[in-house]
Amino acid sequence: MGEPGILGVHNLSMSLDGYVAGPRQDAENPLGVGGMRLHDWVFATRTGRRMIGEPGGSTGLDDAFLRRGETGTDGRGIGATIMGRNMFGPVRGPWPGPPAAPWRGWWGEEPPYHHPVFVLTHEPREPQPMAGGTTFHFVTDGIESALALARAAAGERELRLGGGATTIRQYLRAGLVDQLHLVLVPVLLGSGERLLDDDLSGRYAVSRTTPGDGGVTHVELDRVR
Amino acid sequence: MGEPGILGVHNLSMSLDGYVAGPRQDAENPLGVGGMRLHDWVFATRTGRRMIGEPGGSTGLDDAFLRRGETGTDGRGIGATIMGRNMFGPVRGPWPGPPAAPWRGWWGEEPPYHHPVFVLTHEPREPQPMAGGTTFHFVTDGIESALALARAAAGERELRLGGGATTIRQYLRAGLVDQLHLVLVPVLLGSGERLLDDDLSGRYAVSRTTPGDGGVTHVELDRVR
Repeated sequence: MGEPGILGVHNLSMSLDGYVAGPRQDAENPLGVGGMRLHDWVFATRTGRRMIGEPGGSTGLDDAFLRRGETGTDGRGIGATIMGRNMFGPVRGPWPGPPAAPWRGWWGEEPPYHHPVFVLTHEPREPQPMAGGTTFHFVTDGIESALALARAAAGERELRLGGGATTIRQYLRAGLVDQLHLVLVPVLLGSGERLLDDDLSGRYAVSRTTPGDGGVTHVELDRVR
Repeated sequence: MGEPGILGVHNLSMSLDGYVAGPRQDAENPLGVGGMRLHDWVFATRTGRRMIGEPGGSTGLDDAFLRRGETGTDGRGIGATIMGRNMFGPVRGPWPGPPAAPWRGWWGEEPPYHHPVFVLTHEPREPQPMAGGTTFHFVTDGIESALALARAAAGERELRLGGGATTIRQYLRAGLVDQLHLVLVPVLLGSGERLLDDDLSGRYAVSRTTPGDGGVTHVELDRVR
Protein backbone atom coordinates (compact mmCIF):
# COMPACT_ATOMS: atom_id res chain seq x y z
CA MET A 1 0.00 0.00 0.00
CA GLY A 2 1.10 3.50 -0.75
CA GLU A 3 4.14 2.83 -2.94
CA PRO A 4 4.80 5.40 -5.65
CA GLY A 5 3.74 4.41 -9.15
CA ILE A 6 1.79 1.28 -8.26
CA LEU A 7 -0.98 0.32 -10.67
CA GLY A 8 -4.35 -0.46 -9.10
CA VAL A 9 -7.81 -1.48 -10.21
CA HIS A 10 -10.42 -0.01 -7.86
CA ASN A 11 -14.10 -0.76 -7.30
CA LEU A 12 -14.49 -3.15 -10.21
CA SER A 13 -17.96 -4.67 -9.90
CA MET A 14 -18.29 -8.35 -10.78
CA SER A 15 -21.51 -10.38 -10.94
CA LEU A 16 -22.05 -13.75 -9.27
CA ASP A 17 -21.50 -15.39 -12.65
CA GLY A 18 -18.21 -13.53 -13.14
CA TYR A 19 -19.14 -10.72 -15.52
CA VAL A 20 -17.85 -7.15 -15.20
CA ALA A 21 -20.03 -5.82 -18.03
CA GLY A 22 -23.13 -7.00 -19.81
CA PRO A 23 -23.25 -8.13 -23.45
CA ARG A 24 -23.63 -5.87 -26.52
CA GLN A 25 -21.90 -2.70 -25.32
CA ASP A 26 -22.80 0.37 -27.41
CA ALA A 27 -23.59 4.08 -27.09
CA GLU A 28 -26.91 3.36 -25.39
CA ASN A 29 -25.52 0.66 -23.10
CA PRO A 30 -21.94 1.63 -22.28
CA LEU A 31 -21.82 -1.12 -19.65
CA GLY A 32 -23.59 -3.65 -21.86
CA VAL A 33 -27.19 -4.76 -21.61
CA GLY A 34 -28.08 -5.16 -17.92
CA GLY A 35 -24.62 -3.97 -16.88
CA MET A 36 -25.97 -1.00 -14.91
CA ARG A 37 -27.27 -3.46 -12.29
CA LEU A 38 -23.63 -4.04 -11.37
CA HIS A 39 -23.38 -0.40 -10.29
CA ASP A 40 -26.53 0.11 -8.22
CA TRP A 41 -24.38 -0.03 -5.09
CA VAL A 42 -22.28 2.90 -6.40
CA PHE A 43 -25.25 5.20 -6.84
CA ALA A 44 -26.46 4.46 -3.32
CA THR A 45 -23.35 6.21 -1.95
CA ARG A 46 -22.55 9.89 -1.52
CA THR A 47 -19.50 9.62 -3.79
CA GLY A 48 -21.47 7.80 -6.46
CA ARG A 49 -24.32 10.31 -6.33
CA ARG A 50 -21.90 13.20 -6.53
CA MET A 51 -20.53 11.70 -9.78
CA ILE A 52 -23.96 12.16 -11.37
CA GLY A 53 -24.58 15.53 -9.72
CA GLU A 54 -27.05 14.25 -7.13
CA PRO A 55 -27.06 15.04 -3.40
CA GLY A 56 -27.33 12.56 -0.54
CA GLY A 57 -26.17 8.96 -0.45
CA SER A 58 -24.62 6.67 2.15
CA THR A 59 -21.26 7.39 3.78
CA GLY A 60 -20.34 3.91 5.01
CA LEU A 61 -17.83 1.34 3.83
CA ASP A 62 -18.91 1.33 0.19
CA ASP A 63 -18.49 5.09 0.03
CA ALA A 64 -15.05 4.84 1.66
CA PHE A 65 -13.92 2.32 -0.95
CA LEU A 66 -15.14 4.58 -3.75
CA ARG A 67 -13.30 7.56 -2.27
CA ARG A 68 -10.14 5.48 -2.04
CA GLY A 69 -10.47 4.92 -5.79
CA GLU A 70 -10.01 8.68 -6.16
CA THR A 71 -7.39 9.30 -3.47
CA GLY A 72 -5.33 6.13 -3.96
CA THR A 73 -4.49 3.80 -1.09
CA ASP A 74 -2.05 6.40 0.28
CA GLY A 75 -4.53 9.29 0.13
CA ARG A 76 -2.35 11.42 -2.16
CA GLY A 77 -4.67 11.19 -5.15
CA ILE A 78 -4.41 9.21 -8.37
CA GLY A 79 -1.69 10.62 -10.64
CA ALA A 80 -2.80 9.11 -13.94
CA THR A 81 -5.45 6.74 -15.33
CA ILE A 82 -5.13 4.14 -18.07
CA MET A 83 -8.17 2.89 -19.98
CA GLY A 84 -9.06 0.96 -23.10
CA ARG A 85 -10.69 2.63 -26.07
CA ASN A 86 -14.05 0.95 -25.35
CA MET A 87 -14.15 2.59 -21.97
CA PHE A 88 -13.36 5.95 -23.58
CA GLY A 89 -16.21 5.67 -26.04
CA PRO A 90 -18.30 3.64 -28.47
CA VAL A 91 -16.34 4.83 -31.55
CA ARG A 92 -14.61 2.01 -33.49
CA GLY A 93 -12.06 2.37 -36.30
CA PRO A 94 -10.44 5.73 -37.25
CA TRP A 95 -11.43 8.83 -35.29
CA PRO A 96 -13.89 10.90 -37.33
CA GLY A 97 -12.38 14.02 -38.96
CA PRO A 98 -14.22 17.31 -39.61
CA PRO A 99 -17.00 18.18 -39.97
CA ALA A 100 -17.86 15.61 -37.25
CA ALA A 101 -16.53 16.61 -33.84
CA PRO A 102 -14.24 13.90 -32.46
CA TRP A 103 -15.56 11.88 -29.53
CA ARG A 104 -14.35 13.41 -26.25
CA GLY A 105 -15.33 10.67 -23.78
CA TRP A 106 -18.53 9.78 -21.94
CA TRP A 107 -18.03 12.36 -19.21
CA GLY A 108 -18.88 15.76 -20.72
CA GLU A 109 -16.67 18.86 -20.70
CA GLU A 110 -15.22 18.29 -17.23
CA PRO A 111 -14.40 14.59 -16.76
CA PRO A 112 -14.05 13.39 -13.15
CA TYR A 113 -10.35 12.51 -13.50
CA HIS A 114 -8.52 15.85 -13.09
CA HIS A 115 -5.26 14.21 -14.20
CA PRO A 116 -3.73 12.71 -17.39
CA VAL A 117 -5.68 9.78 -18.84
CA PHE A 118 -3.96 7.39 -21.25
CA VAL A 119 -6.33 5.75 -23.74
CA LEU A 120 -5.18 2.58 -25.51
CA THR A 121 -6.09 2.67 -29.21
CA HIS A 122 -4.85 1.59 -32.62
CA GLU A 123 -5.77 4.99 -34.11
CA PRO A 124 -3.36 7.89 -33.47
CA ARG A 125 -4.79 11.19 -32.31
CA GLU A 126 -3.51 14.43 -30.76
CA PRO A 127 -3.93 14.85 -26.99
CA GLN A 128 -7.33 16.20 -26.00
CA PRO A 129 -7.27 18.66 -23.07
CA MET A 130 -10.54 19.01 -21.13
CA ALA A 131 -11.78 21.29 -18.36
CA GLY A 132 -10.69 20.57 -14.79
CA GLY A 133 -7.21 19.23 -15.47
CA THR A 134 -8.03 16.05 -17.40
CA THR A 135 -6.10 15.51 -20.67
CA PHE A 136 -6.77 12.43 -22.79
CA HIS A 137 -3.59 11.03 -24.36
CA PHE A 138 -3.91 8.38 -27.06
CA VAL A 139 -1.35 5.55 -26.95
CA THR A 140 -0.92 3.32 -29.99
CA ASP A 141 2.09 1.21 -29.03
CA GLY A 142 0.69 -1.08 -26.38
CA ILE A 143 0.01 -1.57 -22.70
CA GLU A 144 3.61 -1.36 -21.44
CA SER A 145 4.13 1.93 -23.26
CA ALA A 146 0.91 3.34 -21.77
CA LEU A 147 2.06 2.25 -18.31
CA ALA A 148 5.49 3.90 -18.73
CA LEU A 149 3.88 7.15 -19.93
CA ALA A 150 1.35 7.11 -17.09
CA ARG A 151 4.05 6.43 -14.52
CA ALA A 152 6.16 9.31 -15.83
CA ALA A 153 3.13 11.63 -15.66
CA ALA A 154 2.08 10.52 -12.16
CA GLY A 155 5.39 11.11 -10.41
CA GLU A 156 5.09 9.84 -6.85
CA ARG A 157 1.39 9.19 -7.09
CA GLU A 158 -0.46 5.92 -7.74
CA LEU A 159 -1.88 4.89 -11.11
CA ARG A 160 -5.38 3.65 -11.74
CA LEU A 161 -6.36 1.15 -14.40
CA GLY A 162 -9.93 2.01 -15.38
CA GLY A 163 -11.19 -0.69 -17.72
CA GLY A 164 -12.84 -2.27 -19.57
CA ALA A 165 -12.61 -5.99 -19.07
CA THR A 166 -10.35 -6.63 -22.09
CA THR A 167 -7.82 -4.02 -20.99
CA ILE A 168 -7.72 -5.23 -17.40
CA ARG A 169 -7.32 -8.84 -18.56
CA GLN A 170 -4.34 -7.78 -20.71
CA TYR A 171 -2.63 -6.04 -17.80
CA LEU A 172 -3.36 -8.92 -15.41
CA ARG A 173 -2.01 -11.47 -17.87
CA ALA A 174 1.19 -9.42 -18.18
CA GLY A 175 1.50 -9.24 -14.37
CA LEU A 176 1.46 -5.43 -14.45
CA VAL A 177 -1.43 -4.84 -12.03
CA ASP A 178 -0.22 -4.44 -8.44
CA GLN A 179 -3.58 -4.22 -6.66
CA LEU A 180 -6.96 -5.54 -7.78
CA HIS A 181 -10.05 -4.51 -5.83
CA LEU A 182 -13.18 -6.39 -6.87
CA VAL A 183 -16.70 -5.75 -5.66
CA LEU A 184 -18.76 -8.94 -5.75
CA VAL A 185 -22.32 -7.98 -6.60
CA PRO A 186 -24.95 -10.67 -5.95
CA VAL A 187 -26.73 -10.54 -9.30
CA LEU A 188 -26.76 -12.89 -12.29
CA LEU A 189 -26.04 -11.19 -15.64
CA GLY A 190 -26.16 -14.37 -17.72
CA SER A 191 -23.61 -13.21 -20.29
CA GLY A 192 -21.16 -10.42 -21.00
CA GLU A 193 -17.49 -9.76 -20.36
CA ARG A 194 -15.77 -12.18 -17.96
CA LEU A 195 -12.82 -10.96 -15.92
CA LEU A 196 -11.22 -14.07 -14.44
CA ASP A 197 -10.98 -16.57 -17.29
CA ASP A 198 -7.18 -16.64 -17.25
CA ASP A 199 -5.42 -18.70 -14.59
CA LEU A 200 -4.25 -16.10 -12.04
CA SER A 201 -3.75 -18.56 -9.16
CA GLY A 202 -0.27 -18.25 -7.71
CA ARG A 203 0.10 -14.82 -9.34
CA TYR A 204 -2.49 -12.90 -7.31
CA ALA A 205 -3.64 -13.61 -3.77
CA VAL A 206 -6.55 -12.28 -1.74
CA SER A 207 -5.30 -10.00 1.02
CA ARG A 208 -8.62 -8.85 2.49
CA THR A 209 -12.36 -9.48 2.27
CA THR A 210 -14.77 -6.85 3.59
CA PRO A 211 -18.58 -7.06 3.62
CA GLY A 212 -19.99 -3.85 2.12
CA ASP A 213 -23.22 -2.06 2.88
CA GLY A 214 -25.64 -3.16 0.20
CA GLY A 215 -25.06 -6.91 0.02
CA VAL A 216 -21.81 -6.49 -1.91
CA THR A 217 -18.44 -7.89 -0.83
CA HIS A 218 -15.15 -6.07 -1.34
CA VAL A 219 -12.28 -8.40 -2.19
CA GLU A 220 -8.74 -7.04 -2.45
CA LEU A 221 -5.99 -8.96 -4.21
CA ASP A 222 -2.29 -8.22 -4.41
CA ARG A 223 0.22 -9.39 -6.95
CA VAL A 224 2.39 -12.18 -5.55
CA ARG A 225 6.02 -11.07 -5.65
CA MET B 1 -38.84 -22.00 2.71
CA GLY B 2 -40.06 -25.15 4.31
CA GLU B 3 -42.23 -26.53 1.50
CA PRO B 4 -42.39 -30.31 1.28
CA GLY B 5 -40.29 -31.90 -1.42
CA ILE B 6 -38.30 -28.83 -2.45
CA LEU B 7 -34.88 -29.50 -3.95
CA GLY B 8 -32.03 -27.48 -2.51
CA VAL B 9 -28.29 -27.12 -2.98
CA HIS B 10 -26.62 -26.23 0.33
CA ASN B 11 -23.18 -24.87 1.20
CA LEU B 12 -21.73 -25.14 -2.28
CA SER B 13 -18.32 -23.44 -2.16
CA MET B 14 -17.33 -21.39 -5.20
CA SER B 15 -13.99 -19.68 -5.81
CA LEU B 16 -13.55 -16.07 -6.89
CA ASP B 17 -12.93 -17.30 -10.42
CA GLY B 18 -16.14 -19.35 -10.39
CA TYR B 19 -14.92 -22.90 -9.75
CA VAL B 20 -16.66 -25.36 -7.43
CA ALA B 21 -13.95 -28.01 -7.78
CA GLY B 22 -10.35 -28.04 -8.93
CA PRO B 23 -9.09 -29.77 -12.09
CA ARG B 24 -8.15 -33.48 -12.46
CA GLN B 25 -10.49 -35.10 -9.93
CA ASP B 26 -9.41 -38.61 -8.95
CA ALA B 27 -9.19 -40.95 -5.95
CA GLU B 28 -6.40 -38.88 -4.39
CA ASN B 29 -8.05 -35.51 -5.12
CA PRO B 30 -11.80 -36.08 -4.90
CA LEU B 31 -12.34 -32.30 -5.10
CA GLY B 32 -9.74 -31.83 -7.83
CA VAL B 33 -6.24 -30.43 -7.42
CA GLY B 34 -6.37 -27.50 -4.99
CA GLY B 35 -10.11 -28.01 -4.45
CA MET B 36 -9.71 -28.61 -0.71
CA ARG B 37 -8.92 -24.88 -0.30
CA LEU B 38 -12.57 -24.25 -1.11
CA HIS B 39 -13.53 -26.11 2.06
CA ASP B 40 -11.17 -24.67 4.67
CA TRP B 41 -14.10 -22.65 6.05
CA VAL B 42 -16.06 -25.89 6.61
CA PHE B 43 -13.37 -27.48 8.75
CA ALA B 44 -13.12 -24.37 10.91
CA THR B 45 -16.67 -25.03 12.17
CA ARG B 46 -17.98 -27.45 14.79
CA THR B 47 -20.22 -29.19 12.24
CA GLY B 48 -17.37 -29.51 9.76
CA ARG B 49 -15.00 -30.88 12.38
CA ARG B 50 -17.60 -33.37 13.56
CA MET B 51 -17.80 -34.71 9.97
CA ILE B 52 -14.14 -35.73 10.22
CA GLY B 53 -14.39 -36.92 13.82
CA GLU B 54 -12.61 -33.92 15.34
CA PRO B 55 -13.74 -31.90 18.37
CA GLY B 56 -13.99 -28.11 18.62
CA GLY B 57 -14.71 -25.63 15.88
CA SER B 58 -16.66 -22.39 15.56
CA THR B 59 -20.40 -22.17 16.21
CA GLY B 60 -21.22 -18.95 14.35
CA LEU B 61 -22.98 -18.23 11.09
CA ASP B 62 -20.94 -20.60 8.95
CA ASP B 63 -21.73 -23.43 11.34
CA ALA B 64 -25.43 -22.53 11.30
CA PHE B 65 -25.49 -22.69 7.49
CA LEU B 66 -23.80 -26.08 7.56
CA ARG B 67 -26.31 -27.39 10.08
CA ARG B 68 -29.15 -26.12 7.91
CA GLY B 69 -27.73 -28.28 5.13
CA GLU B 70 -28.50 -31.27 7.36
CA THR B 71 -31.82 -30.17 8.83
CA GLY B 72 -33.29 -28.49 5.74
CA THR B 73 -34.62 -24.93 5.79
CA ASP B 74 -37.62 -26.10 7.83
CA GLY B 75 -35.55 -27.97 10.41
CA ARG B 76 -37.25 -31.33 9.76
CA GLY B 77 -34.18 -32.98 8.28
CA ILE B 78 -33.31 -33.85 4.71
CA GLY B 79 -35.42 -36.74 3.41
CA ALA B 80 -33.26 -37.81 0.48
CA THR B 81 -30.07 -36.78 -1.34
CA ILE B 82 -29.31 -36.88 -5.07
CA MET B 83 -25.74 -36.96 -6.34
CA GLY B 84 -23.77 -37.64 -9.50
CA ARG B 85 -21.60 -40.70 -9.87
CA ASN B 86 -18.39 -38.63 -9.62
CA MET B 87 -19.44 -37.45 -6.20
CA PHE B 88 -20.13 -41.03 -5.17
CA GLY B 89 -16.70 -42.21 -6.21
CA PRO B 90 -13.81 -42.23 -8.66
CA VAL B 91 -14.94 -45.45 -10.40
CA ARG B 92 -15.72 -44.98 -14.13
CA GLY B 93 -17.41 -47.49 -16.46
CA PRO B 94 -19.08 -50.73 -15.21
CA TRP B 95 -19.04 -51.45 -11.47
CA PRO B 96 -16.38 -54.05 -10.71
CA GLY B 97 -17.73 -57.61 -10.08
CA PRO B 98 -16.17 -60.17 -7.71
CA PRO B 99 -13.54 -60.71 -6.55
CA ALA B 100 -13.18 -56.89 -6.26
CA ALA B 101 -15.53 -55.40 -3.69
CA PRO B 102 -17.77 -52.75 -5.30
CA TRP B 103 -17.06 -49.13 -4.39
CA ARG B 104 -19.32 -48.09 -1.49
CA GLY B 105 -18.75 -44.32 -1.47
CA TRP B 106 -16.11 -42.03 0.04
CA TRP B 107 -17.66 -42.03 3.48
CA GLY B 108 -16.80 -45.39 5.08
CA GLU B 109 -19.26 -47.85 6.63
CA GLU B 110 -21.56 -45.21 8.13
CA PRO B 111 -22.06 -42.35 5.65
CA PRO B 112 -23.26 -39.03 7.12
CA TYR B 113 -26.57 -39.06 5.24
CA HIS B 114 -28.83 -41.37 7.30
CA HIS B 115 -31.45 -41.35 4.52
CA PRO B 116 -31.83 -42.66 0.95
CA VAL B 117 -29.22 -41.35 -1.51
CA PHE B 118 -29.92 -41.52 -5.25
CA VAL B 119 -26.77 -41.82 -7.37
CA LEU B 120 -27.01 -40.93 -11.07
CA THR B 121 -25.13 -43.46 -13.20
CA HIS B 122 -25.23 -45.19 -16.57
CA GLU B 123 -24.33 -48.53 -14.95
CA PRO B 124 -27.14 -50.46 -13.17
CA ARG B 125 -26.47 -51.82 -9.71
CA GLU B 126 -28.51 -53.20 -6.79
CA PRO B 127 -29.22 -50.82 -3.88
CA GLN B 128 -26.41 -50.70 -1.34
CA PRO B 129 -27.57 -50.43 2.29
CA MET B 130 -25.02 -48.97 4.73
CA ALA B 131 -24.87 -48.51 8.51
CA GLY B 132 -26.83 -45.66 10.08
CA GLY B 133 -29.80 -45.54 7.73
CA THR B 134 -28.12 -44.56 4.46
CA THR B 135 -28.98 -46.65 1.39
CA PHE B 136 -27.40 -45.85 -1.98
CA HIS B 137 -29.83 -46.31 -4.88
CA PHE B 138 -28.47 -46.26 -8.44
CA VAL B 139 -30.61 -44.49 -11.01
CA THR B 140 -29.91 -45.07 -14.71
CA ASP B 141 -32.79 -43.25 -16.37
CA GLY B 142 -31.92 -39.61 -15.80
CA ILE B 143 -32.26 -36.63 -13.52
CA GLU B 144 -36.06 -36.33 -13.54
CA SER B 145 -36.43 -39.97 -12.61
CA ALA B 146 -33.95 -39.57 -9.75
CA LEU B 147 -35.88 -36.53 -8.53
CA ALA B 148 -39.22 -38.41 -8.64
CA LEU B 149 -37.73 -41.35 -6.72
CA ALA B 150 -36.11 -39.06 -4.15
CA ARG B 151 -39.32 -37.11 -3.69
CA ALA B 152 -41.30 -40.32 -3.13
CA ALA B 153 -38.72 -41.48 -0.58
CA ALA B 154 -38.57 -38.15 1.28
CA GLY B 155 -42.29 -37.74 1.93
CA GLU B 156 -42.84 -34.33 3.51
CA ARG B 157 -39.17 -33.59 3.91
CA GLU B 158 -36.86 -31.51 1.72
CA LEU B 159 -34.44 -32.95 -0.81
CA ARG B 160 -30.78 -32.10 -1.12
CA LEU B 161 -28.81 -32.07 -4.35
CA GLY B 162 -25.24 -32.93 -3.41
CA GLY B 163 -23.07 -32.48 -6.51
CA GLY B 164 -20.80 -32.42 -8.31
CA ALA B 165 -20.73 -29.48 -10.66
CA THR B 166 -21.96 -31.39 -13.73
CA THR B 167 -24.97 -32.79 -11.90
CA ILE B 168 -25.94 -29.44 -10.39
CA ARG B 169 -25.59 -27.71 -13.77
CA GLN B 170 -27.93 -30.32 -15.30
CA TYR B 171 -30.59 -29.74 -12.64
CA LEU B 172 -30.22 -25.94 -12.84
CA ARG B 173 -30.52 -25.99 -16.63
CA ALA B 174 -33.71 -28.03 -16.29
CA GLY B 175 -35.08 -25.56 -13.72
CA LEU B 176 -35.48 -28.32 -11.13
CA VAL B 177 -33.47 -26.74 -8.30
CA ASP B 178 -35.68 -24.67 -5.98
CA GLN B 179 -32.99 -23.19 -3.71
CA LEU B 180 -29.31 -22.63 -4.42
CA HIS B 181 -27.02 -21.66 -1.54
CA LEU B 182 -23.53 -20.68 -2.67
CA VAL B 183 -20.59 -19.88 -0.44
CA LEU B 184 -18.22 -17.43 -2.13
CA VAL B 185 -14.70 -18.30 -1.04
CA PRO B 186 -12.07 -15.63 -1.72
CA VAL B 187 -9.44 -17.82 -3.37
CA LEU B 188 -8.30 -18.22 -6.99
CA LEU B 189 -8.25 -21.84 -8.23
CA GLY B 190 -7.19 -21.00 -11.78
CA SER B 191 -9.03 -23.91 -13.42
CA GLY B 192 -11.50 -26.65 -12.61
CA GLU B 193 -15.25 -27.11 -12.76
CA ARG B 194 -17.28 -23.94 -13.31
CA LEU B 195 -20.80 -23.74 -11.95
CA LEU B 196 -22.38 -20.68 -13.57
CA ASP B 197 -21.53 -20.92 -17.27
CA ASP B 198 -25.15 -21.27 -18.35
CA ASP B 199 -27.32 -18.16 -18.49
CA LEU B 200 -29.45 -18.38 -15.33
CA SER B 201 -30.44 -14.70 -15.25
CA GLY B 202 -34.20 -14.32 -15.05
CA ARG B 203 -34.51 -17.93 -13.87
CA TYR B 204 -32.82 -17.60 -10.48
CA ALA B 205 -32.64 -14.51 -8.28
CA VAL B 206 -30.58 -13.71 -5.20
CA SER B 207 -32.82 -13.58 -2.13
CA ARG B 208 -30.20 -12.98 0.56
CA THR B 209 -26.49 -12.26 1.03
CA THR B 210 -24.87 -12.93 4.41
CA PRO B 211 -21.23 -12.31 5.35
CA GLY B 212 -19.85 -15.47 6.96
CA ASP B 213 -17.17 -15.85 9.62
CA GLY B 214 -13.99 -16.61 7.75
CA GLY B 215 -14.09 -14.14 4.86
CA VAL B 216 -16.68 -16.17 2.97
CA THR B 217 -20.02 -14.80 1.79
CA HIS B 218 -23.22 -16.84 1.78
CA VAL B 219 -25.46 -16.10 -1.22
CA GLU B 220 -28.92 -17.66 -1.43
CA LEU B 221 -30.81 -17.85 -4.70
CA ASP B 222 -34.38 -18.93 -5.35
CA ARG B 223 -35.92 -20.17 -8.56
CA VAL B 224 -38.06 -17.44 -10.15
CA ARG B 225 -41.63 -18.72 -10.48
